[in-house]
Amino acid sequence: MTTVAAYAAPAAKAPLERTTIERRAVGEFDVLIDIKFAGICHSDIHQAREGWGEAIFPMVPGHEIAGVVSEVGPGVTRFQVGDRVGVGCMVDSCRECENCKAGDEQYCVKGATMTYNGIGKDGEPTQGGYSEKVVVDENYVLRIPDGLSLDVAAPLLCAGITTYSPLKHWGAGPGKKVAVLGMGGLGHMAVKIAHALGAEVTVLSQSLRKKDDGLKLGADHYYATSDPKTFEELQGSFDLIVSTVSASLDFGAFLSLLKTRGALVNVGAPEEPVSLNLFSVIGGGKTLAGSMIGGIAETQEMLDFCAEHGLGAEIELISADRINEAYERVLASDVRYRFVIDTATI
Amino acid sequence: MTTVAAYAAPAAKAPLERTTIERRAVGEFDVLIDIKFAGICHSDIHQAREGWGEAIFPMVPGHEIAGVVSEVGPGVTRFQVGDRVGVGCMVDSCRECENCKAGDEQYCVKGATMTYNGIGKDGEPTQGGYSEKVVVDENYVLRIPDGLSLDVAAPLLCAGITTYSPLKHWGAGPGKKVAVLGMGGLGHMAVKIAHALGAEVTVLSQSLRKKDDGLKLGADHYYATSDPKTFEELQGSFDLIVSTVSASLDFGAFLSLLKTRGALVNVGAPEEPVSLNLFSVIGGGKTLAGSMIGGIAETQEMLDFCAEHGLGAEIELISADRINEAYERVLASDVRYRFVIDTATI
Repeated sequence: MTTVAAYAAPAAKAPLERTTIERRAVGEFDVLIDIKFAGICHSDIHQAREGWGEAIFPMVPGHEIAGVVSEVGPGVTRFQVGDRVGVGCMVDSCRECENCKAGDEQYCVKGATMTYNGIGKDGEPTQGGYSEKVVVDENYVLRIPDGLSLDVAAPLLCAGITTYSPLKHWGAGPGKKVAVLGMGGLGHMAVKIAHALGAEVTVLSQSLRKKDDGLKLGADHYYATSDPKTFEELQGSFDLIVSTVSASLDFGAFLSLLKTRGALVNVGAPEEPVSLNLFSVIGGGKTLAGSMIGGIAETQEMLDFCAEHGLGAEIELISADRINEAYERVLASDVRYRFVIDTATI
Repeated sequence: MTTVAAYAAPAAKAPLERTTIERRAVGEFDVLIDIKFAGICHSDIHQAREGWGEAIFPMVPGHEIAGVVSEVGPGVTRFQVGDRVGVGCMVDSCRECENCKAGDEQYCVKGATMTYNGIGKDGEPTQGGYSEKVVVDENYVLRIPDGLSLDVAAPLLCAGITTYSPLKHWGAGPGKKVAVLGMGGLGHMAVKIAHALGAEVTVLSQSLRKKDDGLKLGADHYYATSDPKTFEELQGSFDLIVSTVSASLDFGAFLSLLKTRGALVNVGAPEEPVSLNLFSVIGGGKTLAGSMIGGIAETQEMLDFCAEHGLGAEIELISADRINEAYERVLASDVRYRFVIDTATI
C-alpha cells in the first residue's frame, strides 16, 4: 500500500478538497504509474454531484490519465519503468465474456471496473486520476506514443476514444459527410479525428462563437443550430452525425439532416428520456444509435492514430487548487476545450 | 382510358363501396395488368381513415397486387402479355436522384409516387389494387416467379419486402438471433423470411395465442411480452429485433433484449412520438433504426427468394363485399395472417 495525495469530493455536491488515499501494493501484473496529467471530463462532474445516480464517496474523479511507469509487477510483460502510459475510463473487466473477448471490454457483460466510482476486484472502491499515482493491471494500461505530449494526450483517454470509436464504426472517412453536434471537450476531438479520417466535417453548434476554432481544428463548415435556416439548408446532408451534447434535442429535426440510411450516434445523453417520432427513422431508413467509450485495443489504435496525425486535445492546464473553479466553468461551457490538471500541484 | 370496377372509400372513415374508376391509356412503357388478387394491408386502413394525415378521396386502396399482364406499350421490353406480375407500394419515382439511382426508389428524394393516395406524373390521383385492372410503368412492375401462387404472393409486395429489407440490411442469417416483435401480417412474413435466411428466430407476441402457428412458420422460440419473465429471461439475447407493431412500446425494455451492438429496427410505428432514454442505446452501443418497404430490385430479389424457399403469405381469401368487415377484423387483430381480395368478385 502506498499513501498518495489526491483531490476528492468528500460527499455528493461537496467541493473537492486535498486529501490522501491508499493505492494497493503493486501486484504480479500491475503497473504503478506516476500520474503527470489528468483531464477534467464532464462526467467527472455528473458523478461527483450524483447526477447519474448514487455514487461512492469520498470520490477521486479522473479517467483521463497520462503518466510514466515507475514500477512494474513481476508478471508484467508489456511495460517497463519509464514508459509513457495512459489510463482511461476502466481499469478492469471480467475478461471472459463475449464482449471482453471481442475487445469490447467497455460493454463487459459483468460490468467493467470503472477507473473511479467503481468497485475493484479487491472489493475496494476505485479512485481516479486527480492524484499522484495509480496502480493498474497492465492489460488496462495504454501506451502513449512518443509523438504525443502527455498533457494533450490525457483527454484522449476519454474524449478521444469516445468520439473515435463511433466515427470508425459508422464509417467516417473520405467521401463521407460527418456532422459533429456540440463543440466542447468531446466535440472538438470529434472534429479533429473526423477530419484526420478524411471526412468532410461540419460543426453544428448552438452559436457561431467558436467558429474560428472549429475551422482551425479541421471543420469544413460551421453552422449555428439556433438559426432555423441551418435546418432548411442542411436537410438530407449527412451520412453521420455524432452528437456530443447532453442537452435534450429535437431529434426529429436532427434526423432530418441525415441522408437516406444515415446514422445519428449519441455519445452524450440527457438525463431525462427524449421524445422521438419513429417516422423520423422509418422514412429514409435511418438510425439512432449510441456509443460508449471504446475497448482497450481500440483505445490504443486511437492513440496511435492521434500520434500519427499530430492530434492532441486543446487544453487549459490548471493547478489542482483550481479544480472546483474549473468545474463551474465546464458547466458554463467556458473552456477551450479541456481542463487538464497538472498533478505535480496536488 | 379504360373504365374498371373498384372498391373505394368515398371519404375519410366512410365504408368502402363498389364504384368505377378510369385507368389511363397504356403508354409507351406501360403494362396493363389484370389484377387477380389484392392484399389488405393495415396501412390501407390508416390511409382510408386519414390516420396518417390528410388523404385523397375517393380512394381505392391496395398496394399488394398480383395479376397477369394483358397489354404492353410499344416500348416495353421487360414484360409480355400473359406474364405473372406484381405491384407494390409505389408505381413511379424521379429515377434521377441518388436514392433512385442506388435502387432505393422508396426513399426517392422527390418522393416516390405511391400506388394509391398519391399523385401520378400525369397529375391525377393514383388508385390502388382493389380494382380489376391497373396501368403501371414497367420499371415499377415485379415478376412473380412460377413457384408462387398469385394469391399468396400478393401480400409479399408490401408485407414481404417490408420485412425482408431490414432483415437483409441488418444481417439476419446463420448464427444470428433474430426476434420478431408482433405476429400479424408483417410479423408472420418476418418469421418465415428470417427462418429461411438461416437465423434463429424468436417471436415476441403479446400472448401465446398464436404460438403453434409461429413455430409452424419457422420460429424456434415464442414468448409473450405480457409476461414480465420474458424480459428477465431474454436480456441481452438478440442481434436484431424487427418490430412490426404500431403500438407504443417500452423501448428501454426491448432495447435491453439486444446484445451489445444489436439493432432494433422499426417497420411499424405508433402515430404518437415515443419516449426513449438514450442510455438504452449508449450502454451496449445499440441501434434504434427504421426501415420502409424496399427498392424495386430488392423487391424482385425478395420475390425470387420467397419462390426459392416456398414462402407465401398465410392468407384468408375474401370476396370484395367483405372488405369493410375485413377492416374491422384487422383492427381487432382477428386475421391469420392476411386478408386477400379475390378481385374477380369486385
